[in-house]
Amino acid sequence: MTTAFAAAELRPIHVGDGTVTILDQAQLPYRVESRMLCKLEDAAHAIRAMQVRGAPLIGVTAACGIALALIHDASDSALAAAVDMLAATRPTAVNLRWALARMSARLQTLPPPARANAAWDEARAIAEEDAASNHAIGEHGRRIIESLAARRLPIAVMTHCNAGWLATAAYGTALAPVYAAHAHGIGVHVFVSETRPRNQGLLTTWELGKAGVAHTLIADNAAGHLMQRGAVDLVIVGADRIAANGDTANKIGTYLKALAAQANGVPFYVAAPGSTIDWQCSNGRDIPIEERDGEELRLVRGVPAAARIAAADMPVANPAFDVTPAALVTGIITERGVAAAQQLAQLFTNE
Amino acid sequence: MTTAFAAAELRPIHVGDGTVTILDQAQLPYRVESRMLCKLEDAAHAIRAMQVRGAPLIGVTAACGIALALIHDASDSALAAAVDMLAATRPTAVNLRWALARMSARLQTLPPPARANAAWDEARAIAEEDAASNHAIGEHGRRIIESLAARRLPIAVMTHCNAGWLATAAYGTALAPVYAAHAHGIGVHVFVSETRPRNQGLLTTWELGKAGVAHTLIADNAAGHLMQRGAVDLVIVGADRIAANGDTANKIGTYLKALAAQANGVPFYVAAPGSTIDWQCSNGRDIPIEERDGEELRLVRGVPAAARIAAADMPVANPAFDVTPAALVTGIITERGVAAAQQLAQLFTNE
Repeated sequence: MTTAFAAAELRPIHVGDGTVTILDQAQLPYRVESRMLCKLEDAAHAIRAMQVRGAPLIGVTAACGIALALIHDASDSALAAAVDMLAATRPTAVNLRWALARMSARLQTLPPPARANAAWDEARAIAEEDAASNHAIGEHGRRIIESLAARRLPIAVMTHCNAGWLATAAYGTALAPVYAAHAHGIGVHVFVSETRPRNQGLLTTWELGKAGVAHTLIADNAAGHLMQRGAVDLVIVGADRIAANGDTANKIGTYLKALAAQANGVPFYVAAPGSTIDWQCSNGRDIPIEERDGEELRLVRGVPAAARIAAADMPVANPAFDVTPAALVTGIITERGVAAAQQLAQLFTNE
Repeated sequence: MTTAFAAAELRPIHVGDGTVTILDQAQLPYRVESRMLCKLEDAAHAIRAMQVRGAPLIGVTAACGIALALIHDASDSALAAAVDMLAATRPTAVNLRWALARMSARLQTLPPPARANAAWDEARAIAEEDAASNHAIGEHGRRIIESLAARRLPIAVMTHCNAGWLATAAYGTALAPVYAAHAHGIGVHVFVSETRPRNQGLLTTWELGKAGVAHTLIADNAAGHLMQRGAVDLVIVGADRIAANGDTANKIGTYLKALAAQANGVPFYVAAPGSTIDWQCSNGRDIPIEERDGEELRLVRGVPAAARIAAADMPVANPAFDVTPAALVTGIITERGVAAAQQLAQLFTNE
């Protein structure tokens, strides 16, 4: 890990010893700004305000939030309060809960004076394991891309939202196979959907541009048309929570892409580390779907103030995620390999 | 027809005698501004720049463009040149071609001195017939909504883009049944998708707000989720061109809604007048799909100029329409009644 952000080596989070620095993704791609997280509340705010986003990165940041909380008070009650505050920030990404449970389990066994150092070690371990998992996802996914390369080059990959390195400790999930293929000299071209209302597609175009990967920005609405016209070889998306039966919650709009992929015979893959699988959740219907502030949709930037006031009355529904049924998922790419969605448990049976 | 726009009686176009006034829809919903069209080029520009949009209104405006052209020169060559200029403005909406063919057929039989007056009469007739067709569409569609009202109230209708009175001479196509149901005291609630990249959903929320019809704005991405959760009773969209086999070209993203409707057992209706049916086009694959300027997607308003310059390099694909296969369409609501998409020709056999 670097000790500071350098242009050559941007990372979405740097976990130091007693310090956490994040890239403020609410400013990207227009401004590249880092931000120090100094206390528990900073970490909770960063997650809530989507300064950090992406299920794996939310997990890492939550772990850091625990470490920050314990600097000043490592008591049982402080630990429990920190877990509660962080758990309440966002409901859908299960990596958040997973990371908090792992931190709790590790720290509760230790006497309070030993907890602060152990918390930083554990947070760093979570980040490092996430990076390693995503690297493995990249290699497994690359083989899928390679297998399609006989068909035509470049391979046209469609993705949704941002599941690149910005969304994780490193490498990304959905984009890890793309980066791995690119590194191996396999021609790839990525269709990036805008991802309204938060426009995370612009994070993806920014990442891909920096990596020199060819890409095209599209409106979310254009995904079906492009698949119908044969322009897409495969879809790869990330996940915020995968139920035990393979149903996958991901950024709102993923389900529409999965339907279009099925209708047009386009393989549809989900890429996610094991920490995104919620074995306690048997079915996608049980995954809580976050409803975010209508302002995200209501605010059309650059319009006169009077119009904004009028728009403030506009009734809005703004679910942030949807659930893609396992039947629409060709395969789930994990650090342990690729499984059909319904056979996901077989990859993780020795856990 | 009114002779000027009054707050109480807004119309998207007013065809006077030698004058045409439009509501500038590129300014809506933020500014309500009318614009005089004084010559052929004004009409062509209004269509191209989407100051007027919506297939039926494009047809009416094109007819007015011919009438404007003939004020100064009613020769055969001037007529042909006007038809050519207007036909080239936008490729997908067939009402444009239909209106131009009708104007040509009517005017070519007349000696040039008689053409100017006849052109205004014919343009007004096209507008009046469109209004009458849409009124009939409203009544036919209202019965569909009524038949669902036993299930629950209010009936939740999802639409896409704007196919209300703004898109036509009057009443609208997809929204005509909604307005008719509302006028008959049947509770309706409309889910309005934002419709990126041009945000025509905001035109729809503006229209519905003025009419006192309950509605909720959603991201295009949210359509599948809402249908999956049972929040939508039926989908009604307009059309830019319907092939003889019932395949329907409409605003980009319509196809994704049709897929989600089918997957979730939600009836999916297309509402359009006969002028939107292209009997020469046997199949949706033959419908030309307009590719619009990438700026529509690239320009994120309100960002600093430097960021805009960076965004100008961003590769963009921006197809404006997609084709929904007839098999996904529950029925097509026309002025002659409602037909299954594949049986559309039976409604129009005596033409």
